[in-house]
Amino acid sequence: MNKITFQFENGDTPVETFASEDENLLEIARKANVAIDAPCSGNAACGKCRVRLVSGELETSKTAHITDDEYAQGWRLACVSKPAGDVTVMVPDIATAYKNRMKMADLDSPEEIEIFRSVKQDLEEAGITFENDLDAVRVTMEPPTLDDTMPDNERLMRALAEALGTEAEKIRMPFAVLSVLSERLRDAAFDVTCVIRRGADETEILDVRPASVEMKITGLAVDIGTTSVAAVLIDMKSGEILAKASAGNGQIRYGADVINRIIESLKEGGRQRLQDAVIRETINPMIHRMCHAAHIHGSQIYRVSVAGNTTMNHLLCGVYADPVRTEPYIPTFFEADSIYAADLGLHTCPHAHIIMSPNIGSYVGGDITAGTLASCIWNRETMSLFIDLGTNGELVFGNSEFMMSCACSAGPAFEGGDISCGMRATDGAIEAVTIDRDTMEPTLTIVGGQGQKAVGICGSGIIDLVCELFRCGIINPKGKFVREGERIRHDKYGMGSYVVVFREDAGSVRDVEISEVDIDNFMRAKGAIFSAIRTMLASLDFTVDMIDDVYVAGGIGSGINMENAVSIGMFPDIPVEKFHYIGNSSLSGAYTILLSDSARERLKELSRNITYLELSTEPGYMDEFVACCFLPHTDASLFPNLTFK
Amino acid sequence: MNKITFQFENGDTPVETFASEDENLLEIARKANVAIDAPCSGNAACGKCRVRLVSGELETSKTAHITDDEYAQGWRLACVSKPAGDVTVMVPDIATAYKNRMKMADLDSPEEIEIFRSVKQDLEEAGITFENDLDAVRVTMEPPTLDDTMPDNERLMRALAEALGTEAEKIRMPFAVLSVLSERLRDAAFDVTCVIRRGADETEILDVRPASVEMKITGLAVDIGTTSVAAVLIDMKSGEILAKASAGNGQIRYGADVINRIIESLKEGGRQRLQDAVIRETINPMIHRMCHAAHIHGSQIYRVSVAGNTTMNHLLCGVYADPVRTEPYIPTFFEADSIYAADLGLHTCPHAHIIMSPNIGSYVGGDITAGTLASCIWNRETMSLFIDLGTNGELVFGNSEFMMSCACSAGPAFEGGDISCGMRATDGAIEAVTIDRDTMEPTLTIVGGQGQKAVGICGSGIIDLVCELFRCGIINPKGKFVREGERIRHDKYGMGSYVVVFREDAGSVRDVEISEVDIDNFMRAKGAIFSAIRTMLASLDFTVDMIDDVYVAGGIGSGINMENAVSIGMFPDIPVEKFHYIGNSSLSGAYTILLSDSARERLKELSRNITYLELSTEPGYMDEFVACCFLPHTDASLFPNLTFK
Repeated sequence: MNKITFQFENGDTPVETFASEDENLLEIARKANVAIDAPCSGNAACGKCRVRLVSGELETSKTAHITDDEYAQGWRLACVSKPAGDVTVMVPDIATAYKNRMKMADLDSPEEIEIFRSVKQDLEEAGITFENDLDAVRVTMEPPTLDDTMPDNERLMRALAEALGTEAEKIRMPFAVLSVLSERLRDAAFDVTCVIRRGADETEILDVRPASVEMKITGLAVDIGTTSVAAVLIDMKSGEILAKASAGNGQIRYGADVINRIIESLKEGGRQRLQDAVIRETINPMIHRMCHAAHIHGSQIYRVSVAGNTTMNHLLCGVYADPVRTEPYIPTFFEADSIYAADLGLHTCPHAHIIMSPNIGSYVGGDITAGTLASCIWNRETMSLFIDLGTNGELVFGNSEFMMSCACSAGPAFEGGDISCGMRATDGAIEAVTIDRDTMEPTLTIVGGQGQKAVGICGSGIIDLVCELFRCGIINPKGKFVREGERIRHDKYGMGSYVVVFREDAGSVRDVEISEVDIDNFMRAKGAIFSAIRTMLASLDFTVDMIDDVYVAGGIGSGINMENAVSIGMFPDIPVEKFHYIGNSSLSGAYTILLSDSARERLKELSRNITYLELSTEPGYMDEFVACCFLPHTDASLFPNLTFK
Repeated sequence: MNKITFQFENGDTPVETFASEDENLLEIARKANVAIDAPCSGNAACGKCRVRLVSGELETSKTAHITDDEYAQGWRLACVSKPAGDVTVMVPDIATAYKNRMKMADLDSPEEIEIFRSVKQDLEEAGITFENDLDAVRVTMEPPTLDDTMPDNERLMRALAEALGTEAEKIRMPFAVLSVLSERLRDAAFDVTCVIRRGADETEILDVRPASVEMKITGLAVDIGTTSVAAVLIDMKSGEILAKASAGNGQIRYGADVINRIIESLKEGGRQRLQDAVIRETINPMIHRMCHAAHIHGSQIYRVSVAGNTTMNHLLCGVYADPVRTEPYIPTFFEADSIYAADLGLHTCPHAHIIMSPNIGSYVGGDITAGTLASCIWNRETMSLFIDLGTNGELVFGNSEFMMSCACSAGPAFEGGDISCGMRATDGAIEAVTIDRDTMEPTLTIVGGQGQKAVGICGSGIIDLVCELFRCGIINPKGKFVREGERIRHDKYGMGSYVVVFREDAGSVRDVEISEVDIDNFMRAKGAIFSAIRTMLASLDFTVDMIDDVYVAGGIGSGINMENAVSIGMFPDIPVEKFHYIGNSSLSGAYTILLSDSARERLKELSRNITYLELSTEPGYMDEFVACCFLPHTDASLFPNLTFK
């Protein structure tokens, strides 16, 4: 056994562990609960798991991800390095950029909550009422005496039945309530508030609390993205947002995309590991922080709504997910109605019902159906295109008459994955770029504001960067570097790159740069989106000029420059005012079904009516895709309004 | 910290642990999971927790329970002994006689199963049908294809709905089934057997198994006594008994009676400890053994019925039980209908419904209502008295018109508690005794058969012993020793005792004897029963000669000699043929409500119609009780047929 010490660039307390010589540093880090990103799941493909050797010796392979200079400085990929004796390595911040860093939203900032206000207003205009079946009822009982020895549960159920005007037989008390009832009634001197759910056939008691304490019935809406998780804590009566948080999905260290996650889940103990990563390491800590901010206890969360893609939903439930990824691609469920918080180990009221936004296919999940609901495209006669740029790209096209969906393997490029200096849109991320055509010097907008140094580049920044490099003639339509300059480099294999921020100015130990490999990855991602749009429209005999509105959703950030996205051939060349960025529509959709029973019913209907187009079997899709892996496209006539080509 | 070593008389591997000087040996043993009985909960009252010092030094107090001789041999009470340094002690078998020793019944022995056959027949004659809502339905589906991509749960629910002639919307799949569905369907090539529960409004899927494997739907009926737990595993369709087991209730080390258990449960972590003791240490191991014997897996137990007294039911559920023991004596529940195996951690199908035989008061619990059902006294016009001799004594008197119940604090004497050499009716227990009037030599019947040495005395043995000592004039009506002989001893305080088996012939390290203290305890127990009978009948203006039948239930053993029980004034002096021993009626009652939904309904009705008489507030009860603490009674005219007085 060798002793392995992980030091951290950010000054966190070092972690010491012991490992056999068979294990590589990535495996050792996982066991020791040290977060090192490995979007490729440890196949030496993504180059993200770099660490720097401080002392000791590693058996390692050199890869294209590490330059000779870097190698000389001690940089290694953790996934291909096995300790040969005691070893100390340093984990740079960039390697943990995806890790579970929670961020609480500032609710005083109007833009954080505007999305929820506006989606509620849109749905109300579409006839949805914002009412739900949760309620608080005060019940005051005579305490028992020697002459009145009715047991506690009957006493409460009878008194509650009277308060509700129903029969005690139609009230159900789940075990979670029964098991604490005796103390709760006595602590409250038999004067309590019952939290109830009014069902069609019976009323269920979810909680019993002292009437003397102000009762807040809250709910939690969660968007579980492959890369990021976002949640809002809501007052179930007023609809007020009490707290909002986001964090990286703790599963990211088991792979960047759903396929790698499923593969990891098939290993021994994998389902539990992946479920723990998203629930125990991600959602539960978010719940604690949000409840702390809202001055409530997690047990006062009485309903949870979840919107996530099909794989995320399955891994959340710890369900065998292999059939989702293998032909004929069959999930365990589209809809699941009998899941409760205690089943998943969520730190809420144990009997909180989990409302899952329904999936409609293995690759079009509850995040898309929730987003479609929030976009209101189902309530318009005009033709709308809904695009969710998540770790994958999903599209829904249609109007109040029909809707069609499809999914394309865009990969995680829009969230910073697949790009060597990519990162989520958190502090230190470059979110907007312009480049001076003459000097080739960039001007940057960095998340985190004044004084924040650049650490990496997020999705909207990459769109800008590629667009500007192309506009300035620094790269050609194939994404190859064709100009020379201080910021342009070529390695010994001839691969070019552009340095956005030199190491000395960066908030990182490395230059922030973009290489031809990164650009190539990105072009495939944007090509996947555009070819999907074209193919889906073609299958319906539509053309892009028949689109009235485009709703762009996802964590790519409100900074997305639609004109640039059109210029690089990611979106169709239609007037820029037709594009609308609607933010995280998966979360805002989850918010609506949490609060409104009629929104939930509408979503079920919608989901059943959205048809699904399987692109991979669609004739012409692959040709179209290949043609799209250019800037902007091999057929430039598709972009008549473009000023540079 | 001192090192404490527990050795065992029976040769079990010694247990080593470390403890602070503040803790006494009993506390240390509990933490180290060493079973030492302490029916009095460690108050130096019962004298059962004796251990022998092997090496080291103990700070101890001498008690009346340890003679000078014994003290010289190293015998100490664990509850009053604190280690002063490293210590080794030996734990004798007798100290663990109550511990969780499981016994599997021999189902080839007709008497083991006759009780269930006969109770079923009796109930059927009373109009109860033996049908339940559990069922197995074979469902064969077309496997999914690229053209038929319905998710697994919909596929199954639709196919099942078709098989049942209902709608898929009326079928509910709990999370426990959903979470394993995908693998189960594929392992079975989409040809499965569903275990379902047909409810009034919806059908619930409890399990999905390959159709190729023969499906057995089983259920578990459990009688949770304060001292002993007994259970039967049953084929839910045929009613066949597949296995039967009994064990000591693991809670016994926290106190012999319900009051001490409740007090223990109020300490920090106490509710969990007591719940663990009965579920994890007692019932779950029984489930494993029974399932092993029946060649099934615990997950194939789809329903559980429980009959126990009110405190046992509350501790089983981990519910705050203090209000049960303090005025005005209010339980959390009489009936509880929404408890499932997963709530309690039972090793059965997680969604198995727990059917609790209803309590009717804090001191008349589900064991008595189940027993009343099984006794069929509610179906007769003649007057019956039902007596359950458990750790307490409970009575029900009445007929098809009315029934009244009461409870008396008989204590655990009938199960061997409160008696220095008392034990449960397991191997080594003296279950029947005769004494030669001249020689005063006893003739014994010992449980375990030929060659089994006597370890202690069980309830039926104590009845015989006291009766024989009285009949032979060895003790007087006050229970004091009045003859001299080799087997009669008097200690230095003058307290007499009778040696039943000398140490050299016993299966124990001590003489098996009965002292005046034991006899006194026993007389209070039998007096409690008789005075309760008299008081309850008087309250109804009945006399003992109006009793048509007496049904005696409980773990006292089929060996109970009714004539002797009458002779010592425990039962009323009516013809012996009116007495019927019906065994563990709590278990046979639990068996009927497990198998028969109509028995369960009948039991609910019964329970609501049995009135409860609180003896402690009944005028004359205390005087009656005092008069009963004689052999047979201060008023001998109540026993006209007695040949010796």
